[in-house]
Amino acid sequence: MSVVSDNAKAGAGRTIISVDAMGGDRGPATVVAGIARSAKKNPDIGFILHGPIDELERLVARKKVLAGRVEIRNAEGVVSMDDKPSQVMRTGKSTSMWSAIESVRNKEADVCVSCGNTGALMMLSVVRLRKLPGVNRPAIAILWPSRNPQGFNIMLDVGADIRADEHDLLQYALMGASYARNGMNIQRPRIGLLNVGTEEHKGRAELKSAHDLMAENAATSNFEFVGFVEGGDIPGDRADVIVTDGFTGNVALKTGEGTANLIGSLLREAFKFSPLSRLASVLAFTSMQRLKKRIDPRRVNGGVFLGLNGTVVKSHGSSDATGVSAAVKLAFTLSQSGFSEKLAARVASAVQLQQDAETSGDKNGPNT
Amino acid sequence: MSVVSDNAKAGAGRTIISVDAMGGDRGPATVVAGIARSAKKNPDIGFILHGPIDELERLVARKKVLAGRVEIRNAEGVVSMDDKPSQVMRTGKSTSMWSAIESVRNKEADVCVSCGNTGALMMLSVVRLRKLPGVNRPAIAILWPSRNPQGFNIMLDVGADIRADEHDLLQYALMGASYARNGMNIQRPRIGLLNVGTEEHKGRAELKSAHDLMAENAATSNFEFVGFVEGGDIPGDRADVIVTDGFTGNVALKTGEGTANLIGSLLREAFKFSPLSRLASVLAFTSMQRLKKRIDPRRVNGGVFLGLNGTVVKSHGSSDATGVSAAVKLAFTLSQSGFSEKLAARVASAVQLQQDAETSGDKNGPNT
Repeated sequence: MSVVSDNAKAGAGRTIISVDAMGGDRGPATVVAGIARSAKKNPDIGFILHGPIDELERLVARKKVLAGRVEIRNAEGVVSMDDKPSQVMRTGKSTSMWSAIESVRNKEADVCVSCGNTGALMMLSVVRLRKLPGVNRPAIAILWPSRNPQGFNIMLDVGADIRADEHDLLQYALMGASYARNGMNIQRPRIGLLNVGTEEHKGRAELKSAHDLMAENAATSNFEFVGFVEGGDIPGDRADVIVTDGFTGNVALKTGEGTANLIGSLLREAFKFSPLSRLASVLAFTSMQRLKKRIDPRRVNGGVFLGLNGTVVKSHGSSDATGVSAAVKLAFTLSQSGFSEKLAARVASAVQLQQDAETSGDKNGPNT
Repeated sequence: MSVVSDNAKAGAGRTIISVDAMGGDRGPATVVAGIARSAKKNPDIGFILHGPIDELERLVARKKVLAGRVEIRNAEGVVSMDDKPSQVMRTGKSTSMWSAIESVRNKEADVCVSCGNTGALMMLSVVRLRKLPGVNRPAIAILWPSRNPQGFNIMLDVGADIRADEHDLLQYALMGASYARNGMNIQRPRIGLLNVGTEEHKGRAELKSAHDLMAENAATSNFEFVGFVEGGDIPGDRADVIVTDGFTGNVALKTGEGTANLIGSLLREAFKFSPLSRLASVLAFTSMQRLKKRIDPRRVNGGVFLGLNGTVVKSHGSSDATGVSAAVKLAFTLSQSGFSEKLAARVASAVQLQQDAETSGDKNGPNT
């Protein structure tokens, strides 16, 4: 590639990802290192990068692989981790986060990636991209290391909203199924509804209603409903997609991460304990690295905001270059598969079915 | 000890634990092996053991250490894991579970231990022991491996009830603090309230109210309130006691267990991968055993039912002898410290304070 331009158009024929360079704990150099890594691995990605133009031009110029593949959009403001979402809504127009979302709104990119403040990113995404018709509450979906052959399960919502009624939970199931199909290539995903017991008489009222709604919609919406699942099934192999409200999902996510971190610390301590165990740690190094890679949160980096006109990938605030690159890879996969349009069509069709069913008073759907 | 009697009185001067021999997945032989292990370690424990007398006499007779230390109460019925709690209420009078609770009701023992069906055990405990005055919802508290010096945190409720309002959550804080003082010898426990964010503007309405109630009551009730905590703090060191509703707590508990199990499986796979890693696993054996012991759920075995006239320790259904013995040890510690009475006094005093405060309209309590 002979075009050497710090601020070139990102190039025709490529899949364009809109990236917020600011707001992560490690600053824009890490984000640029991350997208450079992705660019090297995948010649079909181009970027629109948002942030202070002088700084970004300097950083991008240092990475040869990015030459001609990054268009920089100047945005001097930065949303910090402490900013309140409502405040960002009022005064955030000049920020890189706002600008990154705007590229999705303008259809220049299908998917946007940011390491910034989750609350602000969600609020800006909802206001600027707007919710899909028929979606009441958007959701954040994450990948979770599991015993399934694909290595991961999808869980949603993990914190977009702190409550969800039965209709929201049904929408989460539809959106999670669509994500599993387009992001993980599982044609008929198994959906489980998180509860405290697997017996149908247990649990909250909205969960019982959601259980019935999901069972009714499974066939027409092309997923398998496995019924109630428990916390132990989140890393298990009974379901590919775990549906829950954002409060419960967020607690589960952070409990799982915290438990994994504690075990990691104790494991390191155990290996340091005696000369014998230190020798063992040397011999086991490769195996341990493989294990670490398997459950490394950086590799499953990227909560995905679902239910909007366009897709937003939220990368960990503390992401390093590997983490940013993993989020970009996910954004690319989703963009390539036409995920945003397919999800919109899926939700619209379910809403239509629901309305038809309600009009005809026929719970089995319009086709019967 | 020269008394050799299969059905002797459990002996004066000893702390008596009431034990349900039936209902665990591994049958009464495992329970008897567990109490024998405890009897061997601790000469100050005696038992009342409930179940079919012929079978239990045979099992107890085989363990020399139990001679003269076990009184057997005949109960032919068994509550199975599939029995519905309501059904057990109606027809369960002849069961070992009912009988084991009855010994606490009759003040023959302070604490009862059972490996049986949690729902049935909770319902029988509530109906037979009755709730402490001022307690609306009893709670199940568990121990969770953590980064704290004591090695464990307490979390409650993990599933006695699926909902809790702000007053229930305050009661959980008081009961959890009392458990930490009497079960773990922490004089001024730090209490955290589980939420999705540590900022005070986040979360559900009842959590905000509970936050204020706990802050108000911390000084008079002799605990430190550290405010909102997140899922990652359950295995962390910011708090000694994590307070949450039973739905969220149950999901968190099972998610943490599931995640730890997944990591354990992957670790075993990693060690089997190559000749080098197999050698490493031999060298690391002792260190790994130490780690395993540190986070072994059998060693922290025993959810404790709080808020009743008497204490009930629920051991895992799949407990082996080590697990049963851990539950008995916990029951002994709580019984020795006079936990049941202290907890009752603590709750009564808080209720009194609350009433005084309401009457005088003084939010700072009656002493100011």
